[in-house]
Amino acid sequence: MKQYIAENQERFLNELFEVLRIPSISSSSEHKPDMYRCAEKLKSLLLEAGAERAEVYETTGHPVVYGEKIVDPSWKTILIYGHYDVQPVDPIELWHSAPFEPEIRNGAIYARGANDDKGQAFMHIKAFEYLVRKGLMRHNIKFILEGEEEIGSPSLAQWAKDHKDLLACDIMLVSDTTMIGENTPSINCGMRGLAYVEVEVTGPNKDLHSGHYGGAVVNPINALCSMIDQLIDENGRITVKGFYDDVVELSQADREQLGRAPFDMEEYKEFLDIDDVNGEAGYTTQERTGIRPCLDVNGIWGGFTGEGAKTVLPSKAHAKISMRLVPNQNCETIARLFEEHFLSIAPKGVRVKVTPHHGGNGFLIPISSPAYQAASRAIGEVYGIEPVPSRGGGSIPILADLQQILNVDPLLMGFGLERDTIHSPNESYLLSQFYKGMESIALFYRYF
Amino acid sequence: MKQYIAENQERFLNELFEVLRIPSISSSSEHKPDMYRCAEKLKSLLLEAGAERAEVYETTGHPVVYGEKIVDPSWKTILIYGHYDVQPVDPIELWHSAPFEPEIRNGAIYARGANDDKGQAFMHIKAFEYLVRKGLMRHNIKFILEGEEEIGSPSLAQWAKDHKDLLACDIMLVSDTTMIGENTPSINCGMRGLAYVEVEVTGPNKDLHSGHYGGAVVNPINALCSMIDQLIDENGRITVKGFYDDVVELSQADREQLGRAPFDMEEYKEFLDIDDVNGEAGYTTQERTGIRPCLDVNGIWGGFTGEGAKTVLPSKAHAKISMRLVPNQNCETIARLFEEHFLSIAPKGVRVKVTPHHGGNGFLIPISSPAYQAASRAIGEVYGIEPVPSRGGGSIPILADLQQILNVDPLLMGFGLERDTIHSPNESYLLSQFYKGMESIALFYRYF
Repeated sequence: MKQYIAENQERFLNELFEVLRIPSISSSSEHKPDMYRCAEKLKSLLLEAGAERAEVYETTGHPVVYGEKIVDPSWKTILIYGHYDVQPVDPIELWHSAPFEPEIRNGAIYARGANDDKGQAFMHIKAFEYLVRKGLMRHNIKFILEGEEEIGSPSLAQWAKDHKDLLACDIMLVSDTTMIGENTPSINCGMRGLAYVEVEVTGPNKDLHSGHYGGAVVNPINALCSMIDQLIDENGRITVKGFYDDVVELSQADREQLGRAPFDMEEYKEFLDIDDVNGEAGYTTQERTGIRPCLDVNGIWGGFTGEGAKTVLPSKAHAKISMRLVPNQNCETIARLFEEHFLSIAPKGVRVKVTPHHGGNGFLIPISSPAYQAASRAIGEVYGIEPVPSRGGGSIPILADLQQILNVDPLLMGFGLERDTIHSPNESYLLSQFYKGMESIALFYRYF
Repeated sequence: MKQYIAENQERFLNELFEVLRIPSISSSSEHKPDMYRCAEKLKSLLLEAGAERAEVYETTGHPVVYGEKIVDPSWKTILIYGHYDVQPVDPIELWHSAPFEPEIRNGAIYARGANDDKGQAFMHIKAFEYLVRKGLMRHNIKFILEGEEEIGSPSLAQWAKDHKDLLACDIMLVSDTTMIGENTPSINCGMRGLAYVEVEVTGPNKDLHSGHYGGAVVNPINALCSMIDQLIDENGRITVKGFYDDVVELSQADREQLGRAPFDMEEYKEFLDIDDVNGEAGYTTQERTGIRPCLDVNGIWGGFTGEGAKTVLPSKAHAKISMRLVPNQNCETIARLFEEHFLSIAPKGVRVKVTPHHGGNGFLIPISSPAYQAASRAIGEVYGIEPVPSRGGGSIPILADLQQILNVDPLLMGFGLERDTIHSPNESYLLSQFYKGMESIALFYRYF
């Protein structure tokens, strides 16, 4: 594959850049036409790479791209999952180059989606192309590339149920995560789940002059702040009643195994420019992001937020709040518990509404599985170091659903790095990871 | 005056509407040209009304309009203060008619500034016109109409110091407040002061993926909420160290005198559509908004606030926080105490910045003063009921400054009503109050 990459490098980048130039932001309805453009583009790329058939399927939301090359029904079938939708680009003013005008700087591709997940999904298309053109196919290969991962895949689970036979496979292969570092390759053996809600706190039925009413009428922003503050106690534990009921405590041995991943606290703090970390008492930073649930406010707004000063006592305040869950916690149960709890702590004088957004459950992948072992050998060969198992703090809720629907394990071979700042301005993807990823994927097929 | 109003009603409204159509929003730099247009328009109106001279003066900020008619140096001189700038119009979608297209509905003028303060200042120009044209002038009259009241009058105090002789007067007359009700006329005998700050809480130096970092890295929104929650204790008292040091407790007699103003709690709650009020323990709703200080978050923002869901752990969170002060509290001292306190409660893992906006001190006006007595008699005659003294919860910081600079008392004859929802969508001004205000002002000149 190394040789093949060297010969085709320029074409690969040109093709990827064409995909990156399409602003396929799934959360914004104005980008609907871009979703179709991007899906059609990927369909063409799959056909050019060697798929026997490829289709853009309608769903209740954004379209799904499906492609396959079935060589021999007796062979094992691998389903590659990826997504072509991307996160919004705000705050746009912090980007050093336009998010949808990909640029190579210092050995990395800069663009929204460069890593998450256009860049990573693209590696699979090219590894597939290599196998086809060099006559190295030893598995049947299927692709499913969806357009709603960043908004919680609201349509894909139903679509997958309706197309269960089409998607039938022995293993699901996914590159949508990070590894610990270029010199510390790792394979995710578990992901956190997610419950995401939006809350609205209403005080008076209109915006008021804070001079005339301040002090007597409950201010919904103050009330919201107080309610949010009550959600986490002084030990960093979430106070939602029943929240920890289904959390499985890891054994000391498991914690030690995961603790093998190298971690430099000073580097971590320096990278983020923070003087200290904080979280649930009794757990390390890696455990807090890997094996423990958490709660974060992802957005808050209310009142006057423009330039200058306005003395308003607003009618409403809003927040987006998400909880990362660990395997065995159910995202719907947690969203319900949150709603009950949040309503129960509302002070008099305000009304509270909780609206659930998408959610998903976490999951675990056995290290002993043949797929994990094959990936470990492939990555070890490319990087010259045996990869360590890690637990991903992020969530790909749809994978837990697909795992259930298709009854197969997902294998998470992610080649992103922390430095890529996905979801943030200046998302990037290191070229070296891009190429090593392709190589590792090609080798995986040899060892699986 | 009643007769004169009847004869000129249409012209009055046309002239006022021309002023209301100018979007003189002082907080927004893009409206700078509108400030000049509005100032020039008012200068013309003053000259047409009978001013001997009128000028638009440059300041370090928005221009000031000055006009005067000096008839006899031995007469008492009255300085009328008003402002021609208005509040922003957000949320614009809640307006039933365009904020800068004045409209009469159900006996009221609807427009931004209809009451605050274009409508109220306009009454003075027309009462002045009446005195001039009917040969009833018995005082020298000066006008000062500023363009920065809604942003805290940053330039006027210095300008007034530089033009002390020009502004020399025996009493300052101001209509920029409300009365209790159409059937319960009242005169403000005190106003609250204001300290207004903007706070910025910074966590990590970039927006992060909440899945990868959530649980370990301090979220600046959660931190900000917690800090805001700590600012008010369970008794509704502000926890800023030293905040109450200069607050003068009112005597039981004074509290009873102010308690004479009628107040219907059920009506109040129904008007605001709230199930309960809340505030500092041990005080009534009227006391909480009149004679006690308070703290309100006027705006809050951070993270992802768009449509849908984004799993971001943001770098920054912001809030605008204001404190209403009572006479004897110093706004600069309070802003400093706030900053010290707010920095002291910042948790590890975040950095906090506090930026003061404008502020001003509260003040009191003696009920026994001849000006208060003349106003009381004039309003009593027009409304058929003796007005009650009240304490305004709002702040006109510049009045406390002018009081000091010019060494005169301000008299607050406000004709606004609560229903006018100034600073909010659908600001309005009842025509009946508009005309009764003019009459009361004209009579004031007779009795003073």
